[in-house]
Amino acid sequence: MTTPTQHPHSTRRADELHLATIGAGRIGTNHAELVARRIPGARLAAVADPSPEAAQRLGAQLGAEATSAEEVFENPDIDGVLITAPARVHTDLVVAAAAAGKHVFCEKPMAVSLPDADRAIRAAADAGVILQVGFNRRFAPGFAAARDAIVRGKVGTPQILRSLTRDPGPFLGDPMRTPQWTIFRETLIHDFDALCWLNPGAAPATVHAFADALVSPEARAAGHLDTAVVSIRFDNGAMATADANFSAAYGYDVRAEAFGSAGMVTTGSCRATDMTLHDAAGIHAETSRRDTDLLRDAYLAELQTFADAIRHGSPVGPTGAEARTALSIAVAAIRSIETGAPVSISDVLPALDGLGSGAIS
Amino acid sequence: MTTPTQHPHSTRRADELHLATIGAGRIGTNHAELVARRIPGARLAAVADPSPEAAQRLGAQLGAEATSAEEVFENPDIDGVLITAPARVHTDLVVAAAAAGKHVFCEKPMAVSLPDADRAIRAAADAGVILQVGFNRRFAPGFAAARDAIVRGKVGTPQILRSLTRDPGPFLGDPMRTPQWTIFRETLIHDFDALCWLNPGAAPATVHAFADALVSPEARAAGHLDTAVVSIRFDNGAMATADANFSAAYGYDVRAEAFGSAGMVTTGSCRATDMTLHDAAGIHAETSRRDTDLLRDAYLAELQTFADAIRHGSPVGPTGAEARTALSIAVAAIRSIETGAPVSISDVLPALDGLGSGAIS
Amino acid sequence: MTTPTQHPHSTRRADELHLATIGAGRIGTNHAELVARRIPGARLAAVADPSPEAAQRLGAQLGAEATSAEEVFENPDIDGVLITAPARVHTDLVVAAAAAGKHVFCEKPMAVSLPDADRAIRAAADAGVILQVGFNRRFAPGFAAARDAIVRGKVGTPQILRSLTRDPGPFLGDPMRTPQWTIFRETLIHDFDALCWLNPGAAPATVHAFADALVSPEARAAGHLDTAVVSIRFDNGAMATADANFSAAYGYDVRAEAFGSAGMVTTGSCRATDMTLHDAAGIHAETSRRDTDLLRDAYLAELQTFADAIRHGSPVGPTGAEARTALSIAVAAIRSIETGAPVSISDVLPALDGLGSGAIS
Amino acid sequence: MTTPTQHPHSTRRADELHLATIGAGRIGTNHAELVARRIPGARLAAVADPSPEAAQRLGAQLGAEATSAEEVFENPDIDGVLITAPARVHTDLVVAAAAAGKHVFCEKPMAVSLPDADRAIRAAADAGVILQVGFNRRFAPGFAAARDAIVRGKVGTPQILRSLTRDPGPFLGDPMRTPQWTIFRETLIHDFDALCWLNPGAAPATVHAFADALVSPEARAAGHLDTAVVSIRFDNGAMATADANFSAAYGYDVRAEAFGSAGMVTTGSCRATDMTLHDAAGIHAETSRRDTDLLRDAYLAELQTFADAIRHGSPVGPTGAEARTALSIAVAAIRSIETGAPVSISDVLPALDGLGSGAIS
Repeated sequence: MTTPTQHPHSTRRADELHLATIGAGRIGTNHAELVARRIPGARLAAVADPSPEAAQRLGAQLGAEATSAEEVFENPDIDGVLITAPARVHTDLVVAAAAAGKHVFCEKPMAVSLPDADRAIRAAADAGVILQVGFNRRFAPGFAAARDAIVRGKVGTPQILRSLTRDPGPFLGDPMRTPQWTIFRETLIHDFDALCWLNPGAAPATVHAFADALVSPEARAAGHLDTAVVSIRFDNGAMATADANFSAAYGYDVRAEAFGSAGMVTTGSCRATDMTLHDAAGIHAETSRRDTDLLRDAYLAELQTFADAIRHGSPVGPTGAEARTALSIAVAAIRSIETGAPVSISDVLPALDGLGSGAIS
Repeated sequence: MTTPTQHPHSTRRADELHLATIGAGRIGTNHAELVARRIPGARLAAVADPSPEAAQRLGAQLGAEATSAEEVFENPDIDGVLITAPARVHTDLVVAAAAAGKHVFCEKPMAVSLPDADRAIRAAADAGVILQVGFNRRFAPGFAAARDAIVRGKVGTPQILRSLTRDPGPFLGDPMRTPQWTIFRETLIHDFDALCWLNPGAAPATVHAFADALVSPEARAAGHLDTAVVSIRFDNGAMATADANFSAAYGYDVRAEAFGSAGMVTTGSCRATDMTLHDAAGIHAETSRRDTDLLRDAYLAELQTFADAIRHGSPVGPTGAEARTALSIAVAAIRSIETGAPVSISDVLPALDGLGSGAIS
Repeated sequence: MTTPTQHPHSTRRADELHLATIGAGRIGTNHAELVARRIPGARLAAVADPSPEAAQRLGAQLGAEATSAEEVFENPDIDGVLITAPARVHTDLVVAAAAAGKHVFCEKPMAVSLPDADRAIRAAADAGVILQVGFNRRFAPGFAAARDAIVRGKVGTPQILRSLTRDPGPFLGDPMRTPQWTIFRETLIHDFDALCWLNPGAAPATVHAFADALVSPEARAAGHLDTAVVSIRFDNGAMATADANFSAAYGYDVRAEAFGSAGMVTTGSCRATDMTLHDAAGIHAETSRRDTDLLRDAYLAELQTFADAIRHGSPVGPTGAEARTALSIAVAAIRSIETGAPVSISDVLPALDGLGSGAIS
Repeated sequence: MTTPTQHPHSTRRADELHLATIGAGRIGTNHAELVARRIPGARLAAVADPSPEAAQRLGAQLGAEATSAEEVFENPDIDGVLITAPARVHTDLVVAAAAAGKHVFCEKPMAVSLPDADRAIRAAADAGVILQVGFNRRFAPGFAAARDAIVRGKVGTPQILRSLTRDPGPFLGDPMRTPQWTIFRETLIHDFDALCWLNPGAAPATVHAFADALVSPEARAAGHLDTAVVSIRFDNGAMATADANFSAAYGYDVRAEAFGSAGMVTTGSCRATDMTLHDAAGIHAETSRRDTDLLRDAYLAELQTFADAIRHGSPVGPTGAEARTALSIAVAAIRSIETGAPVSISDVLPALDGLGSGAIS
């Protein structure tokens, strides 16, 4: 960190980064553990959650103070926060954290509306803090190698792209309590970011979507959506598809493909290990059943990147502007479902004055 | 064949099937060779082409009579014909062949308009001849195994499907002379059939398409299209994507995926053999550069199936009605490009009275 | 064929090759069908077997004369024979066929002793007929690509090689009736040839073997062997291993690997198709259960090669001398089992005067 | 740890484990970094090396005291040591560490002679300290899954096993300064352990080896060996091969295979990520070039296991007795090279009174 704030009564080591997590749910726990145990030079100083019990349980387990978001923001000994609360409160927490001068790692989505995205970006810009969004795939080794090959020109100009997310089944959630547009704003948002990132320099132009409740058809009447196919046209001519489903019987499935004028890269595999079994029934391999297994290295790398960004004053993203671009595709996809027609990004995305483009260079 | 017509002056063996190819181009040559050399009990009796030189060259090479389509139809010694002429004349040849009592194997597409499709189907039905369409993927071992797994319920109810065609590059055609909607009517028609076939019992309902001239942008103004992404909604809720490109640097690429409530099947690979080379630059494998390499077994199997169908009076398809269904998706995709909006199949496909459904059971 | 013998009363077409199979068992039936149906320009003229019923059944099925080996040799209308009888009579049949002026395709092994191998080679040489041995792996696309990569220097100088054969289980034979050294002389003989062929220009020098009756331990006391691991040292320094087992639960498994100073090639796969199923139990693929499925293309290509060799007078092997080299490894492996010590090839292989080296160039 | 020794003047946290590394070379640095940064609850308290500069450089980098082995042993504040010095001094360090009451993680090989192995085992037993040996493959996810499948009976009774190690090339060492039997005692020792571990309950019985200087033939006269193929017979009938080479052009290659009466498991891959590139030259993937990349997870897991073993008093191995078993195969292989004959393990391995069997249950 360029100018680490040192609290007068702090016993911290001069070179140690103090981070706090806000939200002690499944992903919050995952991130808290990684910070506490696997990020050299970083210390999990505090764990906040609206439920004091949840905070205390996790804090005790990891040797961190159990506290509230408000106290984290007021604590001068905290350098940065990881926002792992439910999606609907992300933006308010980003804004509050930035206002308190904390660097921010925000789980995706950074916002569930474009005005909220603008608020978050503006707050971070005004405060001069780092805002990194949790698009973990960028840090998965295979995805990173794919992007690297694209940047080095190995596939030429991208022409057809694909990204998908299939959450491991069976779906155990309550479809009636899942926010209506979750599949676009929280699931496919990963794919929308990945597609933009794998098509460097291009911006999404037009979006068409199909969606339905195929996993939980009983919730269809209530507007629940658990299966979707989205197609996207980019301003460099490239065309992309993204699909998602809430219940993949075989586990967690995250893949991408980029086809261009000179070749193609593919990445992603559900294989859990390189072990293969051959028996009387054929050839078999085991699958990864959880995102925290399949993307373990990616989670670690994104948090390491956040720590390094604070330390060295060198943010690498994914940035707030990039998250806003991904969100714009989600918003257009939602409007496409509502209207049954393709939707132009320019119709949903007003110009973002003075905050830079979300196009990924 | 149930009642083979025996010409009075024929010297044919009683149990030998006499076939003729109409069209001596690249695929016509491929099919003629397979009939002449690899289909037991079948004989390539004649080769027809508007160019007598082309017919004579191929006929001489394979020991078959060089002739014209008209003479083939008049020749009582011919049991069936393989139509491998340019797409625009397929329907007229199907109708003429059927009228002459010949069984018909027609390369895809069977027709380039729905009225033509109806003409072809009706002609075959009226004449009582077999009409089999050249959707070769159904006969590729991996595709057949995928369909078999679906039929046996291994993936549950299909929810998300994918099919793609990437023709081997560099594109050597003249984009200005390629018929405008070729990518939908001649290329993606394979994928449209594959998607219906991998979603048994369902019918396509709505189609949305993006397309552009990304390989040959200089021909864009003339309406040329060489890259497309199509999304399709089926009446069982399943959603599908199909994509195509005329110039895959790495060779011929044909793949499919079907995801359902109980699992997923994937099929298709560009690998030429199971040989893998590891060297200082990494891990390498060779690709198939031509459809006639990648799908060699499929071409042989579809022609064997046609021969068996004639012999045993047991047609197995792909039928004319199924080809019409695939064509209806192509027609809807073209209209989607023209209008910029999704298109209902019911808006392009009038009821086909008395000719049966194209849904693949 | 350079000088095809034309029988005065023959009705054969001038350019048609007449072949006969001797032995109507499982592989004989496979080869007979391929000649009858899949080799352009070749005709299955006759089928011989000590059992007239077996010959008649196969002959009737394929439209070939049912006869005896003696009549085949006497028939001037036969250009070449395929010897698919039991291994122990191979040499006598090769010698008789050569004496009768017939070109010979002999299933492996060409002989079960080195003096027999010499007899076979000498007979073919004296008669000036082609002698091709049925080492089918050389014609499998992946193996051929591996050899091609080696010949082009892609792996540098071979240093470590591997080849294996696992016959599909369960083992249904009667271990008490299986000839004692079958695993070396009939099974691993394929691997011994493959290893020499993948190490061009080198000759085997020393052989060590382990073997046991692990599949049928009840036959161990009788000397039955169904599992073996052989290591081989070549005169260019390369070291190889070969292993075999009579009962692979997962099907027919044939693979090879060649590691050298510049890289490595691997080939062979039990996958039946490119279809992969993902379900709640993981990732699955089907296996090939029979040699005639896994190596179908290889069987066809070796017979096509034999037909072309006769036609064009251009034999390409595998030659008798190469088969003798493979057999020398089998003989050394057997002696290694008998003595418990490594065995030098020079101790089992006397010089073959005037008949050329078996080293594969 | 059951009864952690607390130094009177220590500032350590009660629950923190203090570890020291002895040897600051390549692997020592790797292990020191993992302890310092990635093992929760463990602290890298000291780094020792005969070269004070090396110790100071690494210590400064990781915030650990730079010291000597002797001081580490005398320091009551150290709970356990990681021995990462050159192989020839491993045993003496194990003995000294055990005498000082330190738990020991010893990089392979634990010893270079069987008497040394006995000394190490006895010293740890007498002192009641944990002795874990660095056979990292056991902790690689694919290898662990393979072993798990074997233990669960998925392959039935093992009959044919394979393990290999190909170090990444080009070979940059000085072959004249590499200890003569390094390929057996330091490289293949991994494979010998893996083969025993993948054949649970069985003991090695007979060993045959071939070896040569194929990478550095100029050092052959001096006895250098860089390529080897070893075959091993186990007392349950299973047969195994192991091979090694010091210069794989394509990177670090570690694989294993276990074939049994009910199936086969394979594990190991040189792929660096799941990214695949298709271009005009074919299909490509990148390889892992270093053991510390390919086996990163395994290195972390074995050190975590050591830390957990100290903490919970529950050692899981690999034990000293298991390391002695692997060494016995290396010793037999060396004698096989010296004599040119197979060697019985019973001839090299005297009974180890009172110290338990090395068979892996």
